[in-house]
Amino acid sequence: MKTLKVGLCGVGNVGGAVLKTLINSSQLLEVQGGVHFDLVQVGARRGKEVVPFEGINITTNLLEVATNPEVDVLVEVVGGVDFSYELVTAALKEGKHVVTANKALIASYGNELFELAKNNNVEIGFEASVAGGTPVIKALREGLVANKVKWFAGILNGTSNFILTEMELNQSSFKSALKKAQELGLAEADPSLDINGTDAAQKASILAALAFHVPFDFSFVSFEGIEEVELEDLKYAKELGYSIKHIALGELDSNVVCVSAYPTLVDKETLLSQVGKEMNALEIFSEGVGSTVYYGPGAGPEPTASAVIADLVDIAKGGWDLDINSDSSNELQVSDSKKAARYYRIQVNDEPGVIAKISSLFADRNISIEALIQHEAKAKANLESIPVVIISGEITDNEAFKLKNELEDLPEVTPGVKKFRIHLGKK
Amino acid sequence: MKTLKVGLCGVGNVGGAVLKTLINSSQLLEVQGGVHFDLVQVGARRGKEVVPFEGINITTNLLEVATNPEVDVLVEVVGGVDFSYELVTAALKEGKHVVTANKALIASYGNELFELAKNNNVEIGFEASVAGGTPVIKALREGLVANKVKWFAGILNGTSNFILTEMELNQSSFKSALKKAQELGLAEADPSLDINGTDAAQKASILAALAFHVPFDFSFVSFEGIEEVELEDLKYAKELGYSIKHIALGELDSNVVCVSAYPTLVDKETLLSQVGKEMNALEIFSEGVGSTVYYGPGAGPEPTASAVIADLVDIAKGGWDLDINSDSSNELQVSDSKKAARYYRIQVNDEPGVIAKISSLFADRNISIEALIQHEAKAKANLESIPVVIISGEITDNEAFKLKNELEDLPEVTPGVKKFRIHLGKK
Repeated sequence: MKTLKVGLCGVGNVGGAVLKTLINSSQLLEVQGGVHFDLVQVGARRGKEVVPFEGINITTNLLEVATNPEVDVLVEVVGGVDFSYELVTAALKEGKHVVTANKALIASYGNELFELAKNNNVEIGFEASVAGGTPVIKALREGLVANKVKWFAGILNGTSNFILTEMELNQSSFKSALKKAQELGLAEADPSLDINGTDAAQKASILAALAFHVPFDFSFVSFEGIEEVELEDLKYAKELGYSIKHIALGELDSNVVCVSAYPTLVDKETLLSQVGKEMNALEIFSEGVGSTVYYGPGAGPEPTASAVIADLVDIAKGGWDLDINSDSSNELQVSDSKKAARYYRIQVNDEPGVIAKISSLFADRNISIEALIQHEAKAKANLESIPVVIISGEITDNEAFKLKNELEDLPEVTPGVKKFRIHLGKK
Repeated sequence: MKTLKVGLCGVGNVGGAVLKTLINSSQLLEVQGGVHFDLVQVGARRGKEVVPFEGINITTNLLEVATNPEVDVLVEVVGGVDFSYELVTAALKEGKHVVTANKALIASYGNELFELAKNNNVEIGFEASVAGGTPVIKALREGLVANKVKWFAGILNGTSNFILTEMELNQSSFKSALKKAQELGLAEADPSLDINGTDAAQKASILAALAFHVPFDFSFVSFEGIEEVELEDLKYAKELGYSIKHIALGELDSNVVCVSAYPTLVDKETLLSQVGKEMNALEIFSEGVGSTVYYGPGAGPEPTASAVIADLVDIAKGGWDLDINSDSSNELQVSDSKKAARYYRIQVNDEPGVIAKISSLFADRNISIEALIQHEAKAKANLESIPVVIISGEITDNEAFKLKNELEDLPEVTPGVKKFRIHLGKK
């Protein structure tokens, strides 16, 4: 049986679960993985008090673990970017493999880190950085290795998905759904990186590097969070046969790769639209195989630990020996030239001629109207404005943005026109 | 870059797609997989006419490929069992790795073949044997390696799922849905192994060996096909909030493993219930991670070839080095002692007292009635019998079978009482 000598840095929620699994499930890992893990050293800033096991070599100096000559592989679950970068580069330079759950680190420094790993003939495992316990990195890198990926579409931020599900199913406001997520431990005290789309966009940039062999480059990802989505939008989406999900999208078209993450209308008939609560899911469309979908918990200590340990087992068996980003023929571009159908919710004064004005504006720009809803405003006294919802034909992000501004310039239209993409998932 | 010398046996639909991918996608496989494939020899009974490529060493004697000293790995996509067994054992004995798409072979001879592979220090790849292009074997063996699997539930036969979907969505009869499947190439001229449940049961026995470390043993799998499902049942299931799917189930309970494959009611709120057409899906529930679901095409030349080639890449990288079935603490048992809720459709004479009689029969056996539907029989002239649908509490297969017989013994009940399991997917 193979043995792997592990150094663990970080004993927070995830690190604690990794520790627990390595110790309590050692027999299971030998049976299922064929690997014996030797926990050489644990780095915990707060020291022994956070390590509820006896007989473990604990240090409060985390860099000591990263450079410990006895360690074969460093597990980095400290989080943050700057110090993690320091730890990981130190370990790689010493010829140690690295397993990390840190999407921000990989999205920001992936190119440099993988280059360093290659030069030192070691591996970096990052399954835990995207979709937690669901093995999506493995599916992309190995399971679908024979196929050219054309696009992927993922629900990659559990907090956002929980909030949208709460709003849709319980008619909660954004605020109260967020509060509930925080109470359940599904959103942090400062939830900005989750709800403003950054987290999903970072994960999308990691998936894009793997799927399309482009550099890790978060600066090419265009994104917005879910703050703009209102209860009213979820209701209209439902009426039109859609859910609203926060969708991270990567697309390859004639060697051009576009990556984005936006609140998006998804057809009610698709599996992605059925992914509720804090769950994650990723649809990968590739030539030959077509669509495959991977669904599971995207966060949480145990699912994340599961992914970390799967990487450790793979490394013990020889790793993946793969030059990520080795195909330079694909090129990352910002996605504002990609076409998509759009949803607009326009609040208008209930005056004669307003629909004509709006639809002329679409017609003048040669943008088709695929669907339009204006409900009768009966029994709604004192309404300042009434909603008109339009599904447009396929237009670029730029055209969509311009159209929104022009709609808002109409005197009958209240500022704050809502616009969201529609994901049609072309086969 | 690693090189793997491949011998391919079988150039039917799947073999043809493997051949095409190895030749046409060789550059993609080098970039994405880091492996160069050297196609040493192709065994095709019909010889050159079925191999539309130049410069390939072709033989009509397939055993020549299996024993060719230049070949590192034999790809067996001949199908059938007896001759495949001969080919595969010949290759293993010569110290060659084997990759196969043959679920019947693995389900029938898995133990012997893996023992032989172990003794000859080679690997057997069988990703393509279950769920085609969806990497479920990889997820079980590697992605979820850190977790104890408690149960899996899968839609593993595309033909059956296509027929049930047709019946549900288009109110087709079983016969006309089967005919459509045959016209679309989704069912064979003799569809028995698909629709009588054998195919799904074989796949379930493979998944069980991998998930629970029990021997491959198809004789422990209890199963039925979809022939018993009528349009009427799909309608009642829908009314009760369920779809009917053919579900392959593997469960671990206190070291006892039960495997089965039955038409089963699945809650409309679950992802499995949303899996339509000929698609496959597998839900795996494990400790720690909870539920993960894998969805994709379960058959077809290109998806199957994709799985075959993923195995080849893994073998080129060193394989999985895993002793399947190494944990002898779990024991396979026939599943008739496993409890599940049940759906009964009972055709009765529309006479006073019949519901009382039926419900007494349930009560006398201490079986709870969770739901009962009897619709008013208005405007249905000349009906010989009317349906009564009952959802029972959890009972064993044996109890369910006995109850069915006792119901049929009642003079008011027409023989042919329908009974199906309900999958609650306990967490």
